[in-house]
Amino acid sequence: MTIHGAIEAGGTKFVCAVGSAATGSLRTATIPTRDPDATFAEVAAFFRDAADFGPVAGIGVASFGPVGVDPASPDYGKILATPKPGWEGTDLLARIRAFLDVPMAIDTDVNAAALAEVRAAGPDMRQLAYVTVGTGIGVGLVSEGSPVHGIGHPEAGHILVRRHPAHEGFAGTCPFHGDCLEGLAAGPAVSSAWGAPASELAADHPFWEVEADYLAQLCMTLFLTMAPQRIVLGGGVMKQERLIPLIRARTADLLGGYVQAARDEAAMERLIVPPACTEPSGLVGAFLLAEQAAG
Amino acid sequence: MTIHGAIEAGGTKFVCAVGSAATGSLRTATIPTRDPDATFAEVAAFFRDAADFGPVAGIGVASFGPVGVDPASPDYGKILATPKPGWEGTDLLARIRAFLDVPMAIDTDVNAAALAEVRAAGPDMRQLAYVTVGTGIGVGLVSEGSPVHGIGHPEAGHILVRRHPAHEGFAGTCPFHGDCLEGLAAGPAVSSAWGAPASELAADHPFWEVEADYLAQLCMTLFLTMAPQRIVLGGGVMKQERLIPLIRARTADLLGGYVQAARDEAAMERLIVPPACTEPSGLVGAFLLAEQAAG
Repeated sequence: MTIHGAIEAGGTKFVCAVGSAATGSLRTATIPTRDPDATFAEVAAFFRDAADFGPVAGIGVASFGPVGVDPASPDYGKILATPKPGWEGTDLLARIRAFLDVPMAIDTDVNAAALAEVRAAGPDMRQLAYVTVGTGIGVGLVSEGSPVHGIGHPEAGHILVRRHPAHEGFAGTCPFHGDCLEGLAAGPAVSSAWGAPASELAADHPFWEVEADYLAQLCMTLFLTMAPQRIVLGGGVMKQERLIPLIRARTADLLGGYVQAARDEAAMERLIVPPACTEPSGLVGAFLLAEQAAG
Repeated sequence: MTIHGAIEAGGTKFVCAVGSAATGSLRTATIPTRDPDATFAEVAAFFRDAADFGPVAGIGVASFGPVGVDPASPDYGKILATPKPGWEGTDLLARIRAFLDVPMAIDTDVNAAALAEVRAAGPDMRQLAYVTVGTGIGVGLVSEGSPVHGIGHPEAGHILVRRHPAHEGFAGTCPFHGDCLEGLAAGPAVSSAWGAPASELAADHPFWEVEADYLAQLCMTLFLTMAPQRIVLGGGVMKQERLIPLIRARTADLLGGYVQAARDEAAMERLIVPPACTEPSGLVGAFLLAEQAAG
């Protein structure tokens, strides 16, 4: 069998794996994200050790953003403007090529996750959005089977939403926009506004309704723009399972019956779902990118 | 040369043409939209008379929505839930086939316009949004060269926007959502909120700033979701040329430097533009749909 390498490059950890999208990971390692030199030294060591499984035909990278995703651009594979110290301008693909010169491809972690969820959904799935709600809010989009790229990649975590009345007076935590969606609803905003992370808030806390409202506004916007056949909600905050039913109900309310295919509760249960991949979707997506790169 | 037929089917008028995307229209006719029987009788008469130019190889229809755009669905070519009396459920393609049985394709007027603008922009344009601001606000999207379809077609005229402070107390005119973008910024909303259409409001009227803010929120949302390389702004309200510079400036403000490729004024001038097609973009798009259908 053909072995591929997958790297899910995140702001707090790098997950490395060898295996394939079809078989899953044969070995993985989780490496804390430090500076690029220290981090890539450990990534290189992982792939050196993993050579036991056979030569790696290609490597796919599912990266935190913003990152250059256009193979025709000099930015391809480079981390762009980021508040993360030491990483701006880092050429991820060149760092990998320095220890393993095989075909490579890179996309955002969320575009890669969207690719993996399209594959998991089966052959009729052409249009899908993958949303992660954690330290930030990331959105990956696949249209007609391809990850969406244009001037950069989707950044729909930063859309403007309407302030929930129970959330007045909270300035928001986004360094660029203050109270955009990420500034109101990502992990740091939740802790800052309510004094504790989502996992520690009681079931009857007003937080749940506020959070569901913001994420429903995102779902509404996605349905009205990309018309996705499925919105997959993942990430740390979404581990609170009570959120998904609240988001489905609120999205239906907001759409007001306008989108014919999203009118009833049964439709919403098919349209807004947790991840279907058993391994992290971003890692599976990195294997898919590796397969595409290796041809 | 191969002759195609094009129909831009609108809520107030049907524009019919024979010609091709490359040569433009050889003959056109504008037919007021009445009930389906009366309207299609005139459409049939146009194509009968236009047979002088030679046989039509295919017909493309750029239609008002919502309309079935998935060729695999039984809804394909049919007008869906519409407030327009007599039109809900009308099978546009069957009505045409009754007088001219040639290959046909249909999409929304705005998706067709987006296709036409992609062609006008040249081979590097893969990701484009076409926005029309008139009686309604319509948005067509092309991703990787194909019109975006999923659960239906894009309906981004109905996204939620934040109310402009100078517009407090206005309930909005959208029958589905009240104060969604269309309910606040389309032609009927402008007349209702300010007492006159955009064309009659003075250059220093507060309307201009409010309208530019709403349309800039749409542009921001489009950049953050589909990452279009170009947003084309067309339609009746956009004929007021002072709007585009206001929208560019406000979009840049709202993005706050977050989207690297949309940071400066020069970038905004390339990214947010009026239509490049000399004939109406929707009609040119209908010719392109006809070409695709005829193969």
